[in-house]
Amino acid sequence: MIAVLPLEGIPEVQPGDDLAALVGDALERAGGLRQGDVVVVSQKVVSKAEGRLERADDHVAVILREARAVRRRRGDFVIAETEHGFVCASAGVDRSNTPGDDWVVLLPRDPDASAATLRAALAARFGTEPAVIVTDSFGRAWRQGTTDVAIGVAGMRPLLDLRGERDARGRPLEATVIAVGDELAGAAELVMGKAAGVPAALIRGYAAPAGEGSARELVMPPERDLFP
Amino acid sequence: MIAVLPLEGIPEVQPGDDLAALVGDALERAGGLRQGDVVVVSQKVVSKAEGRLERADDHVAVILREARAVRRRRGDFVIAETEHGFVCASAGVDRSNTPGDDWVVLLPRDPDASAATLRAALAARFGTEPAVIVTDSFGRAWRQGTTDVAIGVAGMRPLLDLRGERDARGRPLEATVIAVGDELAGAAELVMGKAAGVPAALIRGYAAPAGEGSARELVMPPERDLFP
Repeated sequence: MIAVLPLEGIPEVQPGDDLAALVGDALERAGGLRQGDVVVVSQKVVSKAEGRLERADDHVAVILREARAVRRRRGDFVIAETEHGFVCASAGVDRSNTPGDDWVVLLPRDPDASAATLRAALAARFGTEPAVIVTDSFGRAWRQGTTDVAIGVAGMRPLLDLRGERDARGRPLEATVIAVGDELAGAAELVMGKAAGVPAALIRGYAAPAGEGSARELVMPPERDLFP
Repeated sequence: MIAVLPLEGIPEVQPGDDLAALVGDALERAGGLRQGDVVVVSQKVVSKAEGRLERADDHVAVILREARAVRRRRGDFVIAETEHGFVCASAGVDRSNTPGDDWVVLLPRDPDASAATLRAALAARFGTEPAVIVTDSFGRAWRQGTTDVAIGVAGMRPLLDLRGERDARGRPLEATVIAVGDELAGAAELVMGKAAGVPAALIRGYAAPAGEGSARELVMPPERDLFP
C-alpha cells in the first residue's frame, strides 16, 4: 500500500525562508520521516524561498526571456522550452500565488539542486535520507488539464526501466520505461491542491528506483522528439 | 490521506471472463468497498475480458487500421489518434501480455462503457457505487517514459475545474483545470506494475469531482490542439 499524506501548516513562504525547516516542521507534525519516504514539494514554494520572484509589467516578455525556444505560440499563450529543457506553458513563469498583481514567479535555476539541498537538510534533521521531488503543473499535448510532474529530483531515479523484464508468458514487455517520478508528482498533487495552500506531501510505501537521480532524465532528448 | 492499494490475486483474464466478479473478489480480499472509493483497472484486462484480441502477422497494419489519423511515424513507431480521440503510440495496440507471439490486444471499443459496466456490477455487489477508471500507459510529447492515464471513466469527473477559485491573495488561479483522472491513474500504476501481474488498484480517501464523467473530457478538442 502507498500512502499519500498532505504536509499541512506550512506558512506563506518568503524569499530567504528556510524551506527545509518549514517542511521539516510539517513532517514532524505528520509523525516524522521514515526510511524510504518520498517528500514532494511544489515548485512555487521552492522558487519563493530561493527568491525567484520579480516585478514584471510585461508577463510575456519575461516568458520569452526565460525560454530557450518557443515551441508554439497563440497570442499570449506560449509553449516554451526552458533552460532546463522542460517544455511547458509560459516557460514555467507563473502569475498566481505571487506577492502582488505585477509579480511573477520563475522556475528554480536548478531544481535538482533544490531537491538535493532539501534532501540533505531533512536527512540531517531526521537521520534518514528521503527521496525528494520538486513538482510543477504542466499541460500536455492532446490532453486537457494539467498534471503535476517532477522538475527536480534527488535520491531516486525518476524512470523505472523494465527493459529486459518479461510478462507472465515470458515475452519482453513493450511499454517498458515508466516515468514514476511524474506519477509520484501527480499522486502528491491530489493531496496538495492549488487553492488549499498545501505545498508539500509525503509518499510512504513506494519503493522508488534507487540512484542519485535527476529530473533531466525525464526530458526527451532532441533526437527522439517528434514534436519540436 | 490517500491510500493506494493493489488488488491482488486476479488470475490471467480470458475472453468472456466476468471481470467484475474477478475485481470484486479481489476487493473483498482487500477488505471490501467503501463509499468514495475509486477502483482503477488496467485496459489490458478489460480488453481481454471483452475479447478485444486478434491474431496479427502484421502489427503495423493493425495499428494503421485502428488509427483514425496518424500524427507522426518513424518506421514502425506510430503515434496515432484512435477512434476515441486519444493520441498515443501504436493506437493503443499492444503486443505484450498477449496469448501468443502473433497476437495483439486492442483498446476497448468504448472504455467509458466498460468502466460504467464494472461500476454497476460492483455497486450491486457491495452496496456502494465506486468511481471507476480504466487506464492505459501513454507516452508523452517532450518527456521520457510512460505514465498511466484514464481512457475510461465512470462515476466521477476526470477534470477538477478550479476556474473561479482564488489563491491565498485572492487572485484567480492560473493553471486551473487539473486532470485528476490521469493523476489517479498514475498513482494506481505505482502499485500495479506491468511485470507484477496486478491489473487493478483501489484508491481510498480521495474526494473525486462528482459527476457521471467520461474520459473524453480529457481529450484536447481539435481547435485547442497545437500539436496536430
